[in-house]
Amino acid sequence: MSKVNKVVLAYSGGLDTSIILKWLEDTYDCEVVTFTADIGQGEEVEPARVKAEAMGIKEIYIEDLREEFVRDYVFPMFRANAIYEGEYLLGTSIARPLIAKRLIEIANETGADAISHGATGKGNDQVRFELGAYALKPGVEVIAPWREWDLSSRESLMAYAKNHGIEVDFAKSEKKSPYSMDANLLHISYEGDILEDPWAEAEDDMWRWSVSPENAPDKPTYIELTYEKGDIVAIDGKAMSPATVLEALNKLGGDNGIGRLDIVENRYVGMKSRGCYETPGGTIMMKGHRAIESLTLDREVAHLKDSLMPKYAELVYNGYWWSPEREMMQKMIDESQQYVNGDVRLKLYKGSVSVVGRRSENDSLFDEKIATFEDDDGAYDQKDAAGFIKLNALRLRIAAKRNK
Amino acid sequence: MSKVNKVVLAYSGGLDTSIILKWLEDTYDCEVVTFTADIGQGEEVEPARVKAEAMGIKEIYIEDLREEFVRDYVFPMFRANAIYEGEYLLGTSIARPLIAKRLIEIANETGADAISHGATGKGNDQVRFELGAYALKPGVEVIAPWREWDLSSRESLMAYAKNHGIEVDFAKSEKKSPYSMDANLLHISYEGDILEDPWAEAEDDMWRWSVSPENAPDKPTYIELTYEKGDIVAIDGKAMSPATVLEALNKLGGDNGIGRLDIVENRYVGMKSRGCYETPGGTIMMKGHRAIESLTLDREVAHLKDSLMPKYAELVYNGYWWSPEREMMQKMIDESQQYVNGDVRLKLYKGSVSVVGRRSENDSLFDEKIATFEDDDGAYDQKDAAGFIKLNALRLRIAAKRNK
Amino acid sequence: MSKVNKVVLAYSGGLDTSIILKWLEDTYDCEVVTFTADIGQGEEVEPARVKAEAMGIKEIYIEDLREEFVRDYVFPMFRANAIYEGEYLLGTSIARPLIAKRLIEIANETGADAISHGATGKGNDQVRFELGAYALKPGVEVIAPWREWDLSSRESLMAYAKNHGIEVDFAKSEKKSPYSMDANLLHISYEGDILEDPWAEAEDDMWRWSVSPENAPDKPTYIELTYEKGDIVAIDGKAMSPATVLEALNKLGGDNGIGRLDIVENRYVGMKSRGCYETPGGTIMMKGHRAIESLTLDREVAHLKDSLMPKYAELVYNGYWWSPEREMMQKMIDESQQYVNGDVRLKLYKGSVSVVGRRSENDSLFDEKIATFEDDDGAYDQKDAAGFIKLNALRLRIAAKRNK
Amino acid sequence: MSKVNKVVLAYSGGLDTSIILKWLEDTYDCEVVTFTADIGQGEEVEPARVKAEAMGIKEIYIEDLREEFVRDYVFPMFRANAIYEGEYLLGTSIARPLIAKRLIEIANETGADAISHGATGKGNDQVRFELGAYALKPGVEVIAPWREWDLSSRESLMAYAKNHGIEVDFAKSEKKSPYSMDANLLHISYEGDILEDPWAEAEDDMWRWSVSPENAPDKPTYIELTYEKGDIVAIDGKAMSPATVLEALNKLGGDNGIGRLDIVENRYVGMKSRGCYETPGGTIMMKGHRAIESLTLDREVAHLKDSLMPKYAELVYNGYWWSPEREMMQKMIDESQQYVNGDVRLKLYKGSVSVVGRRSENDSLFDEKIATFEDDDGAYDQKDAAGFIKLNALRLRIAAKRNK
Repeated sequence: MSKVNKVVLAYSGGLDTSIILKWLEDTYDCEVVTFTADIGQGEEVEPARVKAEAMGIKEIYIEDLREEFVRDYVFPMFRANAIYEGEYLLGTSIARPLIAKRLIEIANETGADAISHGATGKGNDQVRFELGAYALKPGVEVIAPWREWDLSSRESLMAYAKNHGIEVDFAKSEKKSPYSMDANLLHISYEGDILEDPWAEAEDDMWRWSVSPENAPDKPTYIELTYEKGDIVAIDGKAMSPATVLEALNKLGGDNGIGRLDIVENRYVGMKSRGCYETPGGTIMMKGHRAIESLTLDREVAHLKDSLMPKYAELVYNGYWWSPEREMMQKMIDESQQYVNGDVRLKLYKGSVSVVGRRSENDSLFDEKIATFEDDDGAYDQKDAAGFIKLNALRLRIAAKRNK
Repeated sequence: MSKVNKVVLAYSGGLDTSIILKWLEDTYDCEVVTFTADIGQGEEVEPARVKAEAMGIKEIYIEDLREEFVRDYVFPMFRANAIYEGEYLLGTSIARPLIAKRLIEIANETGADAISHGATGKGNDQVRFELGAYALKPGVEVIAPWREWDLSSRESLMAYAKNHGIEVDFAKSEKKSPYSMDANLLHISYEGDILEDPWAEAEDDMWRWSVSPENAPDKPTYIELTYEKGDIVAIDGKAMSPATVLEALNKLGGDNGIGRLDIVENRYVGMKSRGCYETPGGTIMMKGHRAIESLTLDREVAHLKDSLMPKYAELVYNGYWWSPEREMMQKMIDESQQYVNGDVRLKLYKGSVSVVGRRSENDSLFDEKIATFEDDDGAYDQKDAAGFIKLNALRLRIAAKRNK
Repeated sequence: MSKVNKVVLAYSGGLDTSIILKWLEDTYDCEVVTFTADIGQGEEVEPARVKAEAMGIKEIYIEDLREEFVRDYVFPMFRANAIYEGEYLLGTSIARPLIAKRLIEIANETGADAISHGATGKGNDQVRFELGAYALKPGVEVIAPWREWDLSSRESLMAYAKNHGIEVDFAKSEKKSPYSMDANLLHISYEGDILEDPWAEAEDDMWRWSVSPENAPDKPTYIELTYEKGDIVAIDGKAMSPATVLEALNKLGGDNGIGRLDIVENRYVGMKSRGCYETPGGTIMMKGHRAIESLTLDREVAHLKDSLMPKYAELVYNGYWWSPEREMMQKMIDESQQYVNGDVRLKLYKGSVSVVGRRSENDSLFDEKIATFEDDDGAYDQKDAAGFIKLNALRLRIAAKRNK
Repeated sequence: MSKVNKVVLAYSGGLDTSIILKWLEDTYDCEVVTFTADIGQGEEVEPARVKAEAMGIKEIYIEDLREEFVRDYVFPMFRANAIYEGEYLLGTSIARPLIAKRLIEIANETGADAISHGATGKGNDQVRFELGAYALKPGVEVIAPWREWDLSSRESLMAYAKNHGIEVDFAKSEKKSPYSMDANLLHISYEGDILEDPWAEAEDDMWRWSVSPENAPDKPTYIELTYEKGDIVAIDGKAMSPATVLEALNKLGGDNGIGRLDIVENRYVGMKSRGCYETPGGTIMMKGHRAIESLTLDREVAHLKDSLMPKYAELVYNGYWWSPEREMMQKMIDESQQYVNGDVRLKLYKGSVSVVGRRSENDSLFDEKIATFEDDDGAYDQKDAAGFIKLNALRLRIAAKRNK
């Protein structure tokens, strides 16, 4: 065990991280700085201050990071159309690098030599926190209590809380749900309990952010998204900040039963796990972004992006946001977005998002004159196609002769 | 213009290919063999025989290729999870290689030295037909009348028909739609007319295979798909042949408003075009296949497949089915499917398909004992994660020290 | 045939392009502007002025583009470690985009509506010239006489020259070689004649830029290259401009028998061809660049570059320098080079280049303390490797249990 | 520490693994089975039997695996043209999976529940051994003494040997070299000592398998390699088994100063290390294989192989030979080799290998009639190139108009 003087703890104010707080003080005989961020998880963050104060913490950081989160993490990732394993919109993954960055910045500000978090040793989040931390402050000490302590059962945790004077009381109010949950402005996730059987359907009352498609309105909702350089800057013509965009889309999506997902995914640590996710706004954003790109992006640029997307998504999922390879890919992706400007019209209805129109005044590559089924006045010479095909076929013909 | 003795024509029995038939005879002074296939387009093929006979054709091929189409083309493609440009399920693309193959086989049987088709010089289909033909018979002559003749307007076509004694009469019944359409067991497509404005929403009465989500039943339908080596072999426990599977899923999907798509796509010939597609069964199949793979496929195999998928889809879209690179990729993909066995449970509801369960008696890689949030009895040692992260972070830490 | 008023011709001053000059005037009844560039091909460019003037040309452009060529084309390409089909250093390919760009710029300056070049219809160069031209001036007319005229034999060309008063005289001096050749500062190439039999060894007197390894000095030459952001800025400590660097390395390489290559390559137009190349300086540069990257580039950045390199090389080979996808990849590659600073020591000896040392004062990622076989004082904890391996093996173990 | 009954040790007969043998018995109170393989390292393996017997071992496996090694590991890898980080021919990496496989097979035969090896905790070999072992026998225990014991200095090792009656005597004879070395039929490697400074040139007397280029013969040696399905089956017309091929090429290469390499590489465990390698035969094989492929492989197949090669090489380097993703890629690669038949002629001279000719009676795709600079009698219609270029340029032209 390393000698540690001061540790910055990612502190939610809940029971688990309160226990961790005490355990850190006891085990490492060190000072604890708490850090609590509003990244749109939908819970008040101020109560964390009271609790931290009650436990004698002197340096308490409580911050609203919602705009930064969407602007610098969610939006760049959506420029890449990132989807992990064909389905997952990376809702949990994308929040971790921001937390890691703030933990390290606060460590630098407060002179702390360590950080700590409440993620278990089985999941991806420990990796995401720690890779970020090491990349930003190579000499930092990372303390992951779940990998170190012997409080492996709920009973032992409760006993520890009681013995150390942690109000078990406030613990009662949280976790009404039997699921392990995580939320931020992009999504809410559910794992564990009956979901551990991948054949079992999730219960309808598990879902918290969206109505079921069955309970969504019987009439579709139409919306119009305005894009600038690949990012949404207005909804229905109304300019909005990044976080406000996502909040509005979450509301629209949630009301229309959009964004529920039930998958088995491959964790970086080597196991498969089953998760359910609600990503109402993100689901709409993904559809919209592809639509505006379809009009404004060159074919080969689009295909190159598509071929690299799985790698990009894997990097984000595995926790390599703060890596030179992710930054290098981002440069390329951002470069591709300079012409991704215009509007997309979408229909939201009982669980599905459909594109019904897209336009771009200055940046469309759709050339009606050429594409038309009508007479094109020579804009395109059909005879060119003969030579195009002949030369593309040449190698196939030579091989066919050979293979006989 | 090459000297041609006998040409095999992909003949639908409609007005356009009937004009082509005559034009070939007149222009090339050659014999014409007609080939009409049922690939599930939903129109009778026998009438084509009467028409061909009426025009004096002696060698008439009329064939039901539905099982071959789904078994040897659609299913292998779905093993790859192939989606073009993030959206398009390649419904038109995948039918062309089969037609090309039969055209060539018939040319070989009948001693024809040429083939002909009714695809225009602006689209992808000419490329798909011709690359296939050249790959299978390198010395074949290909006649693409739309690239050669001067019948560029509907009026000139009608005049030609009248002058050459082609019953314009039967022409009337077809094309009630203002759209350019194409159909096979996998999908039906719409292009042209008001769709040439990508901002204009498709009219509801354009769609032919599915009810609108609004008109779909108010209650969800649950189905269970059984997979063997990546292919569906049974629905709700009832064994079915490939074509029967797809027909059944088309019915289920169409009834529930599933599979409508409205996109702008990049054609191989260099232009963007807007198309609307209905792929009810294919949309269900895609979701189901990913779900059974999520349970049975190794992570790195799945990621490798994902990273190559865009390339595979591009090959199919561009018409390179009969190329060594597609065959080489298929070998790899098929190899990956040996353990893709089991069942998927899906919910169909008003336009959306959701996975609600997946299982595989013998081939699941989901290890409940390891994944559990509960005590795992040492199946997984959380301490291993510390070393895992430390070594994965090593290069980032060294770089961080350097970059300061 | 389009109506053309003024055409900019890539004019070498040799017989072929002189014939083209006349043919353009005669066939298109248009004015001709000549453009002759020194890109290091090793021939005087001023004589082209006299010849052009003799043929009555009024607008004559003669330019020394060597620095621009190396700085903006060769160096960026070497940052990517671009090699086509495992062997070819893209010597011809990389010169074409610059010529295309100048042709278009001159067309814009002189009000010309067309450009013309002397590349045949079988090769890659026509594609490279024309894709560049179209990308930079979409409405330009391109005239490729070799694809249009009927002067298919040397005799008919000579007859045309005689009939049109072109001094056949000056033609005599050129082409002492039976090979089709191309040269610029990066390389010289040979095709045709006995090389058309891929089993035949090239004759020793074909090679012009390098001595044979057998005739190279019996003692090795050591050199030291200094890199800044991936580009060579000094040789043996002496600062040099890009073109000067390449000239010096050509001399060093040529003297030591370095850079000869004999390959069969796949042309973009669909055929295989056999070519011999001398790239003395480029061969040294490739080796040196990989060496300095090996010390200063992050592993995953290097691997990402390697995985994209074949695509990048293909783009350059196929003529897509002026495409958004090449530019997008370049952004990423250039981003990766910020730390590629330092020195490489190389041994040149009778045809081979070997790296014998590399160092980087500020940007090395080689950490002697960690890498050492000696005691490392805890810089690296070997026990971490156990967890690293265990988690990386987890999916393999689960699969092994399943597969039994 | 796990309870272990019997462990199979990869035993070289040298001092280190003799100490490990004792340490395993003492520490785990278990029976030890020794396994010593001849994979072409150039040392007798029989002495290992005497030493093992002297230490009381009852189950001793000594095997000649040279043919299996080359046939099932080296040759398949060369079909992929695998090179790690642009330089390294994977000589050490490719031997490990075979050792891992035999360790596990012997464990199964002898009822052992563990295996052990002498690789350190800093290198790649531990990973390669252990990933292989876990993939082949998921429940096996792996003991890596270098990660566990406290014998971190040479002195403590010697003391341990002395205290446990291990003949230090025979230890004297080995390791005359100050370098950490590894050898098999494919290569010999050197690390450590002065090589830990990447700027220091390797001393000439370090190299053991090849003469220096300076000392190689003054006359080139020409050889002819015959390929069947991508593998060499004869040299100069003489049929040979796989191991005999590699032995012969090692001799030829070594005599001509071929195959020395000095690099800095990125280890999987996260650090850079400097290594020197001699791979005389492998260097010749790589050149020859690319040459025969250049004649017989379709362009797109070759490019697809090139684009996947870095991934394949990474898998081999990192130890994932026994993974489903490597096997899946191998399927694709092997499929590509069916036409890779024919002969390659090579010139070996003072450190370099040059291709001077290649031919394939039945499988060449080089079509002299089409490629020729002479009149081709219409085999290729140059006018086709105009359409080819026009359509490939279309998207660029549309974009150019937009971007203005």
